[in-house]
Order: sequence, then C-alpha cells, then structure tokens
Amino acid sequence: MKIQSVITGTGNYIPSVIKKNSDFINHNFLNEDGSPFEQENEVIIEKFKAITGIEERRYATDDLTTSDLGYFASKNAIEDAGIDQEEIDYIIVAHNFGEVKANSIQSDMLPSIAARIKHKLGIKNPSCVAFDILFGCPGWVQGVIQAEAFIKSGMAKKCLVIGAETLSRVVDKFDRDSMIFSDGAGATIIEAKEEVEEGILSHAVRTDTVDECYYLYYGKSYNEADTSDTSYIKMLGRKIYEYGLFNVPAAMKVALDKSGVDISEVKKIFIHQANEKMDEAIVKRFYRLFKSKVPEHIMPMSIRELGNSSVATVPTLFDLVKRGEIENHEINKGDVFIFASVGAGMSINAIVYRY
Amino acid sequence: MKIQSVITGTGNYIPSVIKKNSDFINHNFLNEDGSPFEQENEVIIEKFKAITGIEERRYATDDLTTSDLGYFASKNAIEDAGIDQEEIDYIIVAHNFGEVKANSIQSDMLPSIAARIKHKLGIKNPSCVAFDILFGCPGWVQGVIQAEAFIKSGMAKKCLVIGAETLSRVVDKFDRDSMIFSDGAGATIIEAKEEVEEGILSHAVRTDTVDECYYLYYGKSYNEADTSDTSYIKMLGRKIYEYGLFNVPAAMKVALDKSGVDISEVKKIFIHQANEKMDEAIVKRFYRLFKSKVPEHIMPMSIRELGNSSVATVPTLFDLVKRGEIENHEINKGDVFIFASVGAGMSINAIVYRY
Repeated sequence: MKIQSVITGTGNYIPSVIKKNSDFINHNFLNEDGSPFEQENEVIIEKFKAITGIEERRYATDDLTTSDLGYFASKNAIEDAGIDQEEIDYIIVAHNFGEVKANSIQSDMLPSIAARIKHKLGIKNPSCVAFDILFGCPGWVQGVIQAEAFIKSGMAKKCLVIGAETLSRVVDKFDRDSMIFSDGAGATIIEAKEEVEEGILSHAVRTDTVDECYYLYYGKSYNEADTSDTSYIKMLGRKIYEYGLFNVPAAMKVALDKSGVDISEVKKIFIHQANEKMDEAIVKRFYRLFKSKVPEHIMPMSIRELGNSSVATVPTLFDLVKRGEIENHEINKGDVFIFASVGAGMSINAIVYRY
Repeated sequence: MKIQSVITGTGNYIPSVIKKNSDFINHNFLNEDGSPFEQENEVIIEKFKAITGIEERRYATDDLTTSDLGYFASKNAIEDAGIDQEEIDYIIVAHNFGEVKANSIQSDMLPSIAARIKHKLGIKNPSCVAFDILFGCPGWVQGVIQAEAFIKSGMAKKCLVIGAETLSRVVDKFDRDSMIFSDGAGATIIEAKEEVEEGILSHAVRTDTVDECYYLYYGKSYNEADTSDTSYIKMLGRKIYEYGLFNVPAAMKVALDKSGVDISEVKKIFIHQANEKMDEAIVKRFYRLFKSKVPEHIMPMSIRELGNSSVATVPTLFDLVKRGEIENHEINKGDVFIFASVGAGMSINAIVYRY
C-alpha cells in the first residue's frame, strides 16, 4: 500500500510587537572592525530595505519565549487539522537558540522545546514522543522530511512539526544585520494517508561544511566596548548570498526531477524569507535551469512585514497563503508546491508537494 | 527485501582530566534553600558514592568543546567500521547544551554540532546531511532510532550517530548533584544491510511531560550570593529515580515483546549510566516482569570511573565492552542486547538489537 505524508493542518503565531525600520534610526551601527559607518542611518536603512525588502518585523513580548510561540502555532495547526491531539505520535520542533528569556543571554534547552510544547498543550499520551532538531533556518523543512521518514518507515501516523524562534534576543544591536531578524512560529500536522494523490512527492537535502561551516555563527559584538563573552548571531551576508544563489536552485531541481513533475505544474514556491533580492534571484535561476520564464505569482512573500524569523518563515508563509492572507496568492487542490530553505550549517533543503 | 539497521563501527572519547570524589572535599555544598548541610563533606561524598556508584569522573581539558569530543569519537567509529567517510548519508548528533566553552556560560549551537563535526572530519560530500537532536540523556539512543527511520524509509544507507556532552561546564558547584556529571562522547556507524540476521529488532520510546517536564531543568545556583541569571543543570533526583524505576523496565518490555525475542536470549543490557543503584533496581524490576532472575554479568557498568556523561554513556559503554575493556563482559555474534536510556523531557527509550 502506498503511504503518503500529507499536511492536514497548519498554524502560525505572529508576535504582536511591530518594529519598523524607522525604529532603528537612532541605532549606533558599526562595521565589523568597530568603526562607525560613513553614511547616515537614514541611508543605511534605505539600502537595507532595497536589498532585503524588509519594512518592519515582529518581536515577541517580554513575557513569551520560543516554546510559547510554538505552542500558540501548534494549537492553531491541531485545530486546523481537526485531529485529537492525543493521537500525535511525534512532536518535532526546529529552532536554533532554545528558550532565550528577554534580557538574558543564556539559551535554555533543558528540557527540550518540544517537551515544553507538549506540556503546554497538555498532551497526556506517553507514546507522543517530543524532541528538537537543530538545522539552521531550514529546520522546519527538515522536520517535515523527518516526519516523512517516520511515516514511510511505519514509525508514525501523525506528526506535529514546528519551527519557532526568538531571534530578536540574540542580535547584536551594533550590527546592521540585526534589522533582518525577527520572532515567530509556524506549525504543521503531517499525517500518513493511504492511496491518495496529495502529499510529499520528493525531497532533496545538502550540508556544506568545508568552507561554509561558519558563514552563520555565534560571535562577538561589533561594539568593542562590549568586553563580555556574550555572543550574537552573525553572518557573512555576501558569502551566504552567493552560496544560496548557486546551490538552492540546484537543490530545488534535484527534488523536482526526483518527483517526476514537470516544471510547468509547479504553482507556488514557498521559500525561506531570508532576503527578498536573494529569493527573487534564486527563483529566476531555478527557472533558467529549465529554460523557462518565472511565472507570475509563483512566489508569495511575507518578509516586508515579518522579517526573517528563521525556522518559522516557511510554515508561517504557507499558513498565511492557505488562509488567503497574502494578496494575489491562493492555492487549490492538486497544485504542486516547492518548499525550500537555506541556512546555518550551511544546509539547503527542498520538498516537492502535491496539495 | 528485508533491510536491517546494523551497527558496523563504534568509537568513544574519554576526556583526560580525572576528577576524583576526594577532589570535592573542600566544596561548599548547599541545600536547595541555600542552607549548608549538617554533615561533613566526607559523609556527603561517602553517601553519594554508595547511591550512585561514582568514584571518579572525567572532564574535558579547557581547550576542547563538545564538537571536539564528538569528532574524536567519530574518527574512531569510522575507522572501526572501515567505511569511506564520504559515503555517510546522515550525521546525527545528540547533545543538550551545545558548545559551552570553558569558563563561559553561553551555549553555542550556531552552526549545529553536527555541522562542526562534519567540518572537522573534512567530509566533502554535500549529500552528507548534518543535524542535531535534543532529547535529554536518551539522545544517542534516539539518534539510532532516527537512523533506523532513515534506513527503513530508504533515505539513508549509512549514518553516523554521535552522543557528546560537556556537563562539567553547566554544573552548579554548590549542588551535591554536580558530582554526578561528567564529559564524554560516543559514536556509532549504522548501516543498511540486506537479508542479515543482525541489526535493530525493535524499539520503544515514550515522553512524559504532564508532571515530569521539569524533573530535569536549567535553574539557579543554590548559592544565594550568586545573583546573576546564570542557569545550571538541576534535577529532582528522587522523582527521577521513581519515574525511571517504574517506567524504564516497562519500556524495555514493550521493545522486547515487539522483537519476539525471549527474555532468556538477552545477553547484555546497555543502560544509561545515571546512577548505579537506580540501574540495578531497573534491571531487577525488568526481570521481575518476566518472573525471571537477573542473570550474571547482564549489565556492564562504567559509572564508577566515568560518571554520568548524559548522551555519551550508552555508546561509550557499548564500545568499551566491544573492545574488551570492561571486566567480565564480552559480546559474541548472535547475542541480543537491549540499549535503554532515560532523561530530560522526561523521555525513555529502548532498542532490542541482535549482534
């Protein structure tokens, strides 16, 4: 019997604090060497917006942590799927920094975020196994691939896959890149279905560590007056851009070729909201690999309002489109989608999915 | 065709710094409420040894972090398996605190420990996917179950599963329980083999979070003079003991029943080295479930010399027995083993394996 892994429910949590680009106007941005920028902040922010597309982003209120965000998104996904939460076999949570309380610097992952979310949901069934994965920004997509492995191997019938992160608490305020990052959570119920057309058709994953291992890393503040050993999220933006542009289209093609689906059948590409210009260039190059033009309305985007919330971007975006909350984007039964992401590791993954 | 997940190589890294019980004689141990103990340290340490069995433990030297320990163990496992490391499809690393540099308090998991180990090994193949899982002390056993899911679903043929941790860097020196914890790493190569007798026969997993979620947690120092927001590994020892004693034997029985193997065929139980008295009580109760007596030399132990290194205990112990380094314990072709663990979440898992 052919078993397919089918997304039967989705949910998101968009934190309530809106942080606009203009809120950064008095920030003291520094170069990597600690020197000030020659430009005014107004120019820096304008350039930032032109490249990333980001106009505002969301931060969680101080009373919430990553597991709260994940819990809110999960509740929505469970309700959307219409399942009894006691039937969930696996809770897989992707994140990269654990719980970081507001105004603290230590990550707390004991117990795992998945165990905390299970606790908050009040799931009693001991056979519901809860664990976390760390796979950079592509963590949620990877969690879905793991759910597929559990389902295909007969180990699970229903999985809850969550991406949740509070990047606002690990940014260096002296680093321009701090404007990229935001908080959020997305969650998905994946179920085993027999003899259906929809579900995961194929996937591709890669990890490159020879030169790329530390393109994203935890490093010191650009503010030389900060002599503490506190670390912040840091990135080599230019290198990541080049890495993504070259390798994401190729990984998407590997997945699509495996699926046997023609490029013309692809109706949406849900890509990690890292950078608007990069995402557009990736999709352009992807279609060039098939000697095709980029179709209209192929790539829904949420980065302008939501920023880059790491593992949360793809499931949140998918949920928003499903709920009709992204202009000019709708999805229909039978549509083929590609989910794709890139991030720390460096790693890239792509899933071809029939809705 | 029947595919089995077979352990084809093992390795360990035992850190070089020996910390004896007597090294704690001048420690200032406090109760949870910050009050001093009435007993002398000599008595405290004697009691500690009587319950846990621990006489000494190992700490990593200051220049090493978790990914170094995992890298050393991995090199040994790859060599033992005799495989080309470029053929590895998945690197799965279990830990709970990321990289914690000596004399620092921040966990660093960006990039993942798996990516760092892949980088240190120098594996070039981008199809070798590297990620981390967080599942408390049972993380390595869970990593093996994930490898089994990848193998059974056709997603992987060769996996490297590592457990690595530096608990010495997250202990509260004012807490008696700090004497339990140690550093270490164990690694295993798991390969897909067709039509063989050996390999994973069955497994069982459970996560209990309703009352048990915070039995192990990241909490404040018992030293009230420490007003920082630094957190340390903390445990409700009595509750964990009772939870483990009641639920680990049951989980082991679930796995053994699934395997179809008779209790008399079980030759070794490789159990998480948490506490000697608890482990003995668990095994006794396990055999009582089958109305059997505990066979001689069924449970190799390493806790006396190595302490509790979390995710590292089970793969390290297995490797030591395989190499003939644990007195009175040897393993032979065809033997059936149980791997079992319990820890933060709370979670429990067990694997029945034919060698």
